Amino acid sequence: MTEPAFLKLAAARRSIRKYKPLPVERERLQYCLEAARLAPSACNAQPYKFIVVDEPEAKEKLAKAAFSGIYAPCSFAAAAGALVVVVSQTGKMSAWLGNQVRDTNFRLVDIGIAAEHFVLAAEEQGLGTCWLGWFNARAAARALNIPRALRPEIMLSVGWPDEAPPARKRKSMEELASFNKY
Amino acid sequence: MTEPAFLKLAAARRSIRKYKPLPVERERLQYCLEAARLAPSACNAQPYKFIVVDEPEAKEKLAKAAFSGIYAPCSFAAAAGALVVVVSQTGKMSAWLGNQVRDTNFRLVDIGIAAEHFVLAAEEQGLGTCWLGWFNARAAARALNIPRALRPEIMLSVGWPDEAPPARKRKSMEELASFNKY
Repeated sequence: MTEPAFLKLAAARRSIRKYKPLPVERERLQYCLEAARLAPSACNAQPYKFIVVDEPEAKEKLAKAAFSGIYAPCSFAAAAGALVVVVSQTGKMSAWLGNQVRDTNFRLVDIGIAAEHFVLAAEEQGLGTCWLGWFNARAAARALNIPRALRPEIMLSVGWPDEAPPARKRKSMEELASFNKY
Repeated sequence: MTEPAFLKLAAARRSIRKYKPLPVERERLQYCLEAARLAPSACNAQPYKFIVVDEPEAKEKLAKAAFSGIYAPCSFAAAAGALVVVVSQTGKMSAWLGNQVRDTNFRLVDIGIAAEHFVLAAEEQGLGTCWLGWFNARAAARALNIPRALRPEIMLSVGWPDEAPPARKRKSMEELASFNKY
């Protein structure tokens, strides 16, 4: 990768909420998963599992469970070629201990890292994605027979974009960062 | 970016714990920050600030505060050209409301996403990084005059690698992911 390829990739990516009614090839989803698989995590615990739902019936069942009632704002995601549920798992003891002492939940940081790898690998292939935080986690878990010990933390939609939204405004560099002092 | 450039970038990246005693040019750090600035976040809240410490005296003061006593395992980071402290800020009400209802702390997911953008942009430039979760957050905050309302969640070291560690083992694809059911 030649600079500034990564910056271009990050800059081009948008949250996509309108999808063409097309499937996403398994090889493309596997590529995204491989990128997620390589993600770093605290103590290399990899405290997550990705459940990819691309069969129309299973996807419809999941979408109905996850995006009903007050969760309807995310129901656009049902039209994407695939939905992904990311569940968190208990990591190694050392990470757990760190959590107790430092009170930071590294599992959520790790999920952010791994799922963003998925998202960026999708973008590279021309696929659109949206992070979905507002969904019925319990109902989604039931729809997929996810064990009770595992917690669906976030979902992603992934599919062929049917919109080209403008870039969202970001903080200025001065708001985002400072050098050598707060 | 031509496939599979992103996968190659993710695959090449290692946690670097030995650094050459060289500074990191500001333009390179700015490139990493720009990549972080473009990161998506829940409700576009961007609930974080990056404090980059690259002046030798400030870096030494921060390292002494952050990596003393039980936090000594991360003291290798003091040798890196720069240290980054990522603090979380309270996001928009909608994200906050989502947290209360869904009990997921999206701020930590968002920090994972944005800081991994920084890390990947560093990798693209040949720089080494390490995620640092085990540090004295209070002392680090005091060393940088970070307001009490803000919380240092994670740190990164970034510098010129003086080691080439082998890849860490990751879960198999079967352990990481499944299709259409748990």
